[in-house]
Amino acid sequence: MSLESELPLVGISEIVAAGRRFGGLIRRTPVLPLDGAVTASGGRPPELLLKSEHLQLLGSFKIRGAYNAVASLPEEVRARGVITFSSGNHGKAVAHAAALHGVKATVVMPRTAPDVKVDGVRALGATVELVPPERRDVYPYELAERTGAQVVHPFDARDVIAGQGTAGLEILEQTPALSAVLVPVSGGGLISGVAVAIKTLRPDVKVVGVEPELAGDAAASLRAGERAVWPTEDVYRTRADGLRATSLGTLPWAHIRRLVDDIVTVSEDDIDRALHCLACHGKQVVEPSGAVAPAAFLCGRYIPPTGAGPVVAVVSGGNVDPAVIASVLATPV
Amino acid sequence: MSLESELPLVGISEIVAAGRRFGGLIRRTPVLPLDGAVTASGGRPPELLLKSEHLQLLGSFKIRGAYNAVASLPEEVRARGVITFSSGNHGKAVAHAAALHGVKATVVMPRTAPDVKVDGVRALGATVELVPPERRDVYPYELAERTGAQVVHPFDARDVIAGQGTAGLEILEQTPALSAVLVPVSGGGLISGVAVAIKTLRPDVKVVGVEPELAGDAAASLRAGERAVWPTEDVYRTRADGLRATSLGTLPWAHIRRLVDDIVTVSEDDIDRALHCLACHGKQVVEPSGAVAPAAFLCGRYIPPTGAGPVVAVVSGGNVDPAVIASVLATPV
Repeated sequence: MSLESELPLVGISEIVAAGRRFGGLIRRTPVLPLDGAVTASGGRPPELLLKSEHLQLLGSFKIRGAYNAVASLPEEVRARGVITFSSGNHGKAVAHAAALHGVKATVVMPRTAPDVKVDGVRALGATVELVPPERRDVYPYELAERTGAQVVHPFDARDVIAGQGTAGLEILEQTPALSAVLVPVSGGGLISGVAVAIKTLRPDVKVVGVEPELAGDAAASLRAGERAVWPTEDVYRTRADGLRATSLGTLPWAHIRRLVDDIVTVSEDDIDRALHCLACHGKQVVEPSGAVAPAAFLCGRYIPPTGAGPVVAVVSGGNVDPAVIASVLATPV
Repeated sequence: MSLESELPLVGISEIVAAGRRFGGLIRRTPVLPLDGAVTASGGRPPELLLKSEHLQLLGSFKIRGAYNAVASLPEEVRARGVITFSSGNHGKAVAHAAALHGVKATVVMPRTAPDVKVDGVRALGATVELVPPERRDVYPYELAERTGAQVVHPFDARDVIAGQGTAGLEILEQTPALSAVLVPVSGGGLISGVAVAIKTLRPDVKVVGVEPELAGDAAASLRAGERAVWPTEDVYRTRADGLRATSLGTLPWAHIRRLVDDIVTVSEDDIDRALHCLACHGKQVVEPSGAVAPAAFLCGRYIPPTGAGPVVAVVSGGNVDPAVIASVLATPV
């Protein structure tokens, strides 16, 4: 028995409390039908529904966890500000959550970060500190020690997991008849929170993670019963740029091994086909990372039993270069 | 005083009855926020919200009117089937509404119709009759006389207008604080129904029609106080292929002159900019006709007073060739 399996999991009450903290500032995103999914999956229903976090504030689910983390800090800690080191959706989310609370956010980025990402975070009112790439994961903690500011980890933190779990609560309220929920996996924060919500309230509903084959460390971990770490150059092969964590977080791994039914993988072609189907039939523009969960259903990587209720796929984000979608739409599938 | 202005308008009770007839078969489409609209419109809010009929069954609002028209027919009339002559979204809607009622639908199309449209209607279970283009508007009535089937006009019919009006009822329930609703105009069925719902229940809310400049017969009609008819070759210049009616219907004109506050026009460039903004910021794939109402807000053709409540634009449909959206997304604006 490893230490990890003894970590206390996030509880449903923490997720309910997170939802209360939102106070209407975070969106209750719609669950949208995916017309044409039946054809694409080559069979009759179960129906595929999209929990549409690409329509969330800032275009991804990340604001749920970031907001809860900032809102949960004791007043005197929060006053010293927050720090994070994601240059993607989580970085923006922390910047915005801090702005909503009137506190300072520092986002640490590698010097190699493209200007557009740096400008995007600055536009949300955060301070960006550029560091050598190898210092990116260390510097935030040094800075925190020096300034007393709080690091908000993108996935390996209770408050973040509890915040992400609010998406799971909403799914249960919005689609009571569901038979399974498909959730993208990277560091594992989102699926951990969603799994707590679903398995506490509806243990009969399957919780299935979805990863790109090319960044399949979580699927490998669940198969082996031991947390795998993949080389950075391996996980960077996937076009799903939000799912390139090299391993699960410690706390997410504890949740996943105890609560998640399965983790399946999708190919890069599956992701393209899903992006195309989501745009043409679902009328939704989604980022590649946001398409992996629907891809698992559409491309037969998760096949629900005949007669099962609707499957809900979490579309985690929509922040994509328009040129990517243009090229997907221009290519017949 | 013309005869038209004496036509009795559709009443709110007919719209409420239409909504009851739907019995859950027609979707209550979501009202989605349009992030980034603020930037695109060059000012601070009022907020733009999208009544998302591109997410309606079959991808457009047309099923509302078609379903209500078929459902309202006396049993013995309905049993003889229905006929229509639209090869676009209304044709599909009538085919599907008939199928839901287990009755025969005939869709009359010009021999010049592309195979993909003919196949699309046939796939919904309707019979397609191909006629010379000049016979397209006459033949359905001859056929109706011969067979006893009922013609379901795309816009010049009470039951169709009442069905479309259910979208207006939903908007009021979904966005009680709204200050205005923007509605695309072609034959005028949708705006007529929406205007009855809004002006009966909330006369303080503005109802504004939106047309392409290149098919601006309704705006010209409202200005002149007299129904204008534009040449077919003129209205066919707009890329908004669902808005090429050469004039308003008689019954819609009676509604519009009495209930609609204004009709504004948008350029083809405005439509392109709106398609781009809807995809990039709203994450929504929309057909050009569906983009005209948001375009009026985004491009300053409808400017709400400072401090006004949210503006709801009806996105009427999403049935668009993927290549069109690909080309819009590939072109920076």
